[in-house]
Amino acid sequence: MAAGCKAAARLSRLSTDYRVTIIERSPFISFSSCGLPLFASGEVDGVSDLYKTSYGAVRDVEFFREVKRVKVLTETEVVEVRTEKNEVVCRPVGGDGAFTLPYDSLVFATGSEPVRPHFACARSPLISSFHYPGDAENFRKAAQKGKVASAVIIGGGFVGCELMEAMTSLWGIDTVLIEREAALLPGSLDLEMSLFVESCISSDKIHLLLSSTVEKLTLKETGTPVVSLEGGRSISTDRVFYSLGVRPNTVLAQKSGVKLGRHGGILVDNQLRTNVHNIWAAGDCAEVRNLVTDSTDIFPFGSISNRMGRAAADSISGGHVCFRGAVGTFSLKLFDNTICAAGLTEAGARLNGYDTATVIGCWPDRPDYHPDTRLIFGKLVYEKPSLRLLGLQLAGEGEVTRYADVFSELLSQRKTVEDLASLEHAYTPAHSSPVSPLNYIGYMACDQEFAGILNVSPLEVSSYEGIFVDVREPEETSSFPFPEKSMNIPLKNLNSKLDEFDPVRGLMFVCERGPRGYEAARLFKENGHLNVSYLGGGNLLYSKIIKRLSASPSLKSAACLK
Amino acid sequence: MAAGCKAAARLSRLSTDYRVTIIERSPFISFSSCGLPLFASGEVDGVSDLYKTSYGAVRDVEFFREVKRVKVLTETEVVEVRTEKNEVVCRPVGGDGAFTLPYDSLVFATGSEPVRPHFACARSPLISSFHYPGDAENFRKAAQKGKVASAVIIGGGFVGCELMEAMTSLWGIDTVLIEREAALLPGSLDLEMSLFVESCISSDKIHLLLSSTVEKLTLKETGTPVVSLEGGRSISTDRVFYSLGVRPNTVLAQKSGVKLGRHGGILVDNQLRTNVHNIWAAGDCAEVRNLVTDSTDIFPFGSISNRMGRAAADSISGGHVCFRGAVGTFSLKLFDNTICAAGLTEAGARLNGYDTATVIGCWPDRPDYHPDTRLIFGKLVYEKPSLRLLGLQLAGEGEVTRYADVFSELLSQRKTVEDLASLEHAYTPAHSSPVSPLNYIGYMACDQEFAGILNVSPLEVSSYEGIFVDVREPEETSSFPFPEKSMNIPLKNLNSKLDEFDPVRGLMFVCERGPRGYEAARLFKENGHLNVSYLGGGNLLYSKIIKRLSASPSLKSAACLK
Repeated sequence: MAAGCKAAARLSRLSTDYRVTIIERSPFISFSSCGLPLFASGEVDGVSDLYKTSYGAVRDVEFFREVKRVKVLTETEVVEVRTEKNEVVCRPVGGDGAFTLPYDSLVFATGSEPVRPHFACARSPLISSFHYPGDAENFRKAAQKGKVASAVIIGGGFVGCELMEAMTSLWGIDTVLIEREAALLPGSLDLEMSLFVESCISSDKIHLLLSSTVEKLTLKETGTPVVSLEGGRSISTDRVFYSLGVRPNTVLAQKSGVKLGRHGGILVDNQLRTNVHNIWAAGDCAEVRNLVTDSTDIFPFGSISNRMGRAAADSISGGHVCFRGAVGTFSLKLFDNTICAAGLTEAGARLNGYDTATVIGCWPDRPDYHPDTRLIFGKLVYEKPSLRLLGLQLAGEGEVTRYADVFSELLSQRKTVEDLASLEHAYTPAHSSPVSPLNYIGYMACDQEFAGILNVSPLEVSSYEGIFVDVREPEETSSFPFPEKSMNIPLKNLNSKLDEFDPVRGLMFVCERGPRGYEAARLFKENGHLNVSYLGGGNLLYSKIIKRLSASPSLKSAACLK
Repeated sequence: MAAGCKAAARLSRLSTDYRVTIIERSPFISFSSCGLPLFASGEVDGVSDLYKTSYGAVRDVEFFREVKRVKVLTETEVVEVRTEKNEVVCRPVGGDGAFTLPYDSLVFATGSEPVRPHFACARSPLISSFHYPGDAENFRKAAQKGKVASAVIIGGGFVGCELMEAMTSLWGIDTVLIEREAALLPGSLDLEMSLFVESCISSDKIHLLLSSTVEKLTLKETGTPVVSLEGGRSISTDRVFYSLGVRPNTVLAQKSGVKLGRHGGILVDNQLRTNVHNIWAAGDCAEVRNLVTDSTDIFPFGSISNRMGRAAADSISGGHVCFRGAVGTFSLKLFDNTICAAGLTEAGARLNGYDTATVIGCWPDRPDYHPDTRLIFGKLVYEKPSLRLLGLQLAGEGEVTRYADVFSELLSQRKTVEDLASLEHAYTPAHSSPVSPLNYIGYMACDQEFAGILNVSPLEVSSYEGIFVDVREPEETSSFPFPEKSMNIPLKNLNSKLDEFDPVRGLMFVCERGPRGYEAARLFKENGHLNVSYLGGGNLLYSKIIKRLSASPSLKSAACLK
């Protein structure tokens, strides 16, 4: 797919002396698996569109031979790598006729494979992963024939989320998404942001079953799948997809004496070399340096695979190359929202032993007066006391990707929250605010660290023991009330009320998005109040989150535990 | 405006002990002048929307007093700064009653003013700059009454370009834009990109008069303005705007003994301090470090002014602050296109004495199979042999700003073209290609430097003396022919034709966007052909540019001179 084909094409370009062969088990090569949800949803017409060039040529065996001068053996598998002889033993899939191929350089680009269910799972064409072209094709054929009125997706990661939108947006399929963890995209987002993402789901065809564990997947006599959950509930449905994540495909590498990393990927250096002479690895099967933690990680993203494939080719040809590693930047589209993140979540940072701090906020992506203005919600994770950036999560209908891209680079460079504050961005009211969300995030973090103006997560509201002061105007509080017991003193009137509060009593200031709460906290801090804070993301984020929290009692207790 | 109000509000927040006064000559404060074109076009309802908060409060004198605890004196001017006494002498505009105000710290945030016409210019309410709220208000009132059927804009910079769209999009006004230079946005874009921008103008109400110099601006007896051009042509019109750029407003600073820089702005250090004790400067009036050239420059952008205002306040309060300078990143919306740039143009880099190289290209902003995919065109400028980045220009209907933002940061960090190649970005097919335009630009520049695969500007086509080889498929060349005499050999057939070409004869390979031309050049290079190149941006960019070039004979000769 991405890494293998990129390495092959690049090698062939680097020198016409190279004789390059791709050996692929499936019938497909150079296929964009990231595009499968678009094919499933009907946004992309044919599955073959996913491996076409810009000028309509299909990237098939013949294309690689003619245009790229690369030999491709599809439906062929490598059964053995004889490292001492520098040769591979191949065999047609499901057939006889093993043969050997010699190599000067070998690249493992074996990719990843879907994690198989750990529960008992019946075999049926109506139950599959969503990883291979056939998975999407079978579904779409059935959907086109009107045979899928309901579906169950097991797993709320990237693929599960994309799939639930694909199911409902075009096909109107009643879709149940089952996730074992308490929130969507667990591991990729912290709870506040996961809850925000839940609030973005704008189809009433989608039913989330969080904190729910599948016990078994069986078939009725009619062949209809039945998903049984722990606790007794069961759901019969027309189609089941499991999307439980991917794991590096390293069976062959392991047999060949290639060393694996702590996550089971093939360990490579910054030249994409494995521990075995003349063997490289690239793509989802490889484990590379995580630029945040400095340990190794797997980054199963098409973007990173592509660059690894190219770097492996450059390395083989003796060219100058340094694949520095990655921070794991991703983006996801979910209905009208964009969700991006880079680096570590707060939970991940704590697991990695960092002394962690966060700020949470809400910003318009353009000046408020601009008709296209949309909101962005986000959470920054950084290390104390170094103030080094550790991670960022952003989501909303506004311009999100640009800030994730810049943050990703800052993260790779081990920059601090102060560097966020001095970022320059491309500004015009049609595209951004004069102060970018990243500038604001930097300001908020600096003020938290240097001036003690504490930013509070909406998840901490329920356990807060001080006084909430809502500093919005009366019209705002009546039309969009803050759900907790609070005093209402508009920001402009606070000045005259400074002395009415006990200076040691905790005060949390609340406004619509956060900035007025921050100003109020600052005012009280300057006037000798010791224990002041403001609600990050304001009532806008809080009200979205509390709505989701109250929908899920188990979560409510989880939030209290934070 | 931006810098002054930001500094005042920030100071007041930093300590309630500070007594902060804003002195403003006009009746307005905290006004987004960047939003004026949106008000003129009708996209923003009222001019007061441009100084409202997110919750609808107007940022006026009372707002600053009540909410920000800042005293504001509008329609008041400072006639003298007595630096030895630490006091300013103020006077109501057009009135008597001078008074003095003492200061501990003084911030010059006097902004910029429009450059006045150098030609004879009649006085009339129908002739004005487009810089002050009144300029936009007067126009909009007249337009609403149907009194503006035609308009002339003098100057094709940012404001001129925004204005021409505003004139035509809502009001359908016949608009002539006159620019003395041969291209729009001179100084901000190189000629290839300016011509591309011209091709984005999608209204037939807009008439560009480039390479045209205004001789005088007079009035008919009826009061109708008449614009007379050198060469005899004259245009009578209902409304004239001149947008000839801005210059820092430093009359008072100069009188006060504050040192100015080479561009006439107030010189400040990275603490925003001027040479005079207790005096700071921020915003459009200040001259700061250009992070690319290391000399000083003026950056009259709202984004930079905002950050300077904040930094000045932090500096005054003795806080830790380092305003590092800027690279001049901008963005502009023009019809369906986004135009962004950061750093130096090729022309600017040469003027600054850099040994300059460029690559030009065209990339889809998403995978080709995605229904939302749009194109981005761009030009990279870098230094040889250091390969240090010097500047980037991007334009197109696709996602542009995110790549400008990241590039801006790389530029500030003095990174090289190799750093572009290893950038990580937020990828999903809905938002980007797996390989970002910045990755591609890095690849192209590396291959140009390390492998001699030369990227050629479309402007060099007309003077090229080698052979053009169009490597597209026959269907493509017949439906969208390359305008110059060329051979057509599809990429896949080139392999068998390698020996048919003289290895020292120049060959330039052409395709739709560039990548196939690159591959062909690489193939020939690897096979011993010495003088190979490919057309940057392919026939897509070339055909847009040649159409504009042929519309302007003076430009055609300018292009040959390159």
